[in-house]
Amino acid sequence: MASCTTSRRVPATKRSDQMDFADWMSAVQKRTEAALEQRLPAAALAPVKLHEAMRYASLGGGKRIRPLLCHAAGEAFGASPALIDFPACAVEMIHAYSLVHDDLPCMDNDILRRGKPTCHVEFDEATALLVGDALQSLAFQVLADAPTTSERRVEMLSVLAPAAGSRGMAGGQAIDLAAIGKPLSLEELEFMHVHKTGALIRASVLLGAGCGSADAGAITQLIPFANRVGLLFQVVDDILDAESTTATLGKTAGKDAQQNKPTYVSILGIRKAREKAVELRSEAHAAIESFGDKAIRLHQLTDYIVERKF
Amino acid sequence: MASCTTSRRVPATKRSDQMDFADWMSAVQKRTEAALEQRLPAAALAPVKLHEAMRYASLGGGKRIRPLLCHAAGEAFGASPALIDFPACAVEMIHAYSLVHDDLPCMDNDILRRGKPTCHVEFDEATALLVGDALQSLAFQVLADAPTTSERRVEMLSVLAPAAGSRGMAGGQAIDLAAIGKPLSLEELEFMHVHKTGALIRASVLLGAGCGSADAGAITQLIPFANRVGLLFQVVDDILDAESTTATLGKTAGKDAQQNKPTYVSILGIRKAREKAVELRSEAHAAIESFGDKAIRLHQLTDYIVERKF
Repeated sequence: MASCTTSRRVPATKRSDQMDFADWMSAVQKRTEAALEQRLPAAALAPVKLHEAMRYASLGGGKRIRPLLCHAAGEAFGASPALIDFPACAVEMIHAYSLVHDDLPCMDNDILRRGKPTCHVEFDEATALLVGDALQSLAFQVLADAPTTSERRVEMLSVLAPAAGSRGMAGGQAIDLAAIGKPLSLEELEFMHVHKTGALIRASVLLGAGCGSADAGAITQLIPFANRVGLLFQVVDDILDAESTTATLGKTAGKDAQQNKPTYVSILGIRKAREKAVELRSEAHAAIESFGDKAIRLHQLTDYIVERKF
Repeated sequence: MASCTTSRRVPATKRSDQMDFADWMSAVQKRTEAALEQRLPAAALAPVKLHEAMRYASLGGGKRIRPLLCHAAGEAFGASPALIDFPACAVEMIHAYSLVHDDLPCMDNDILRRGKPTCHVEFDEATALLVGDALQSLAFQVLADAPTTSERRVEMLSVLAPAAGSRGMAGGQAIDLAAIGKPLSLEELEFMHVHKTGALIRASVLLGAGCGSADAGAITQLIPFANRVGLLFQVVDDILDAESTTATLGKTAGKDAQQNKPTYVSILGIRKAREKAVELRSEAHAAIESFGDKAIRLHQLTDYIVERKF
């Protein structure tokens, strides 16, 4: 992608709001790993194989884009990182479960994920099915346990459940399945991604912001930001799938074309797909411009999503 | 099974607490069907195939044992049926999703459920996978929407999530998978069923009672009741699987023996399995004896679970 400045500040001390972006990202990824580790059932606990497989599917990999969005949005509104860990884990568990189910033979039938064999290859199909099911239950349990008011916990559950369900992520998967081998217009492709990837990315931003002082007005501004970031993420994913190697991606490259799946690249061509990414990035930045410096991590994360290599 | 009185009162008027048990059961089944119908996304809504399949898997069949337990426990503690409908739908959606996933080729590979082709046979495997995923999300959404205090909604979510997850129903399925073809002791078999069937049945009783005035003491009494009913349900299921025809059951009969699955019948023999059912019924009745007449539906439902023919 076109290069751009990923950090807007010169790092001084290591206070969270003054850290270099790369350090901040690494710190959030580490705390997310620890928070997931703590909330997943111990591998020694019965049923052992299921718990091992849940940990295999959730720990030790992934960019943690959704937890990063949760923390970036939460920090912008003064939320405590310890509270943000709860929705950050919940969205990552939903994401991890969706990857496990998506990789199953009856769906994408993939064997490589995050540089490792997929869950059903490492364990077996039945276990992978149950891993996804149990990770989804656990995501809701984690939100119900968040150390905040009951009102806020219910609000968070009311954001996550529809984002995961048939009018959100699971619905997006269904639209994706129905689209294989069919010509889609750009509008239809966007409709699919607004559900498949967009719903959970939007939920990540809103759940993070909701941990802090974001009022209805701020949420109204965050929704178009999150929608742009969701599409941006997908456009870049399609470009990477078309241009990268399997080794770089840690998942099977060139899969979309192989499976005859409509993508931004197949519909727009690579040049226009890149232009689309630049345009979406500008719109995302503009949507949160009025928040000023407090939204710096959201700005930086948007840039990172464009510039990532895997 | 041994015969017993299923109704303890002579019906007078048709007020809910004076109805004949069969009428009460039929009324709860009807209101559950209507409540599910209302909460499931319309079939015309995109993605159409997924919504059609979610409705196919949830509507128009099933004994609705879990909603019946929810209403029976709720009525015992003066809860409004309109409020009980929320957890009743939630537990039935979790149950329906578990059947859809359980019937998949990588699990039990079954083709008949509730007298109809299973979801993956009627639609396809990928759709059935997503149906289960989306029904689970919807169950939590329904609880988050219940018209009661946020505290109570969070409490309900904190009961349902672990009952569905890796230490509840999904964990029970994993133990079940691991047990196929292996000799199990009676204790191991019970451990499996306490998770696989018991967790959601226990949750149904507790969620119903929690809609009303049940205090901590009442809940403490309800837990052993619910545990007995959960095991009782399974013992009777095993007897019916061994003794009934596919036409009567509406699902494949004799499946346990075919799949070399340990059951109460395979471990105890049919006579001792029946004795076990009688014993569990007595213990269940005894656990709630002190509630008096207000628990009549729980008593009657326990009897129904023993005497059912499918």
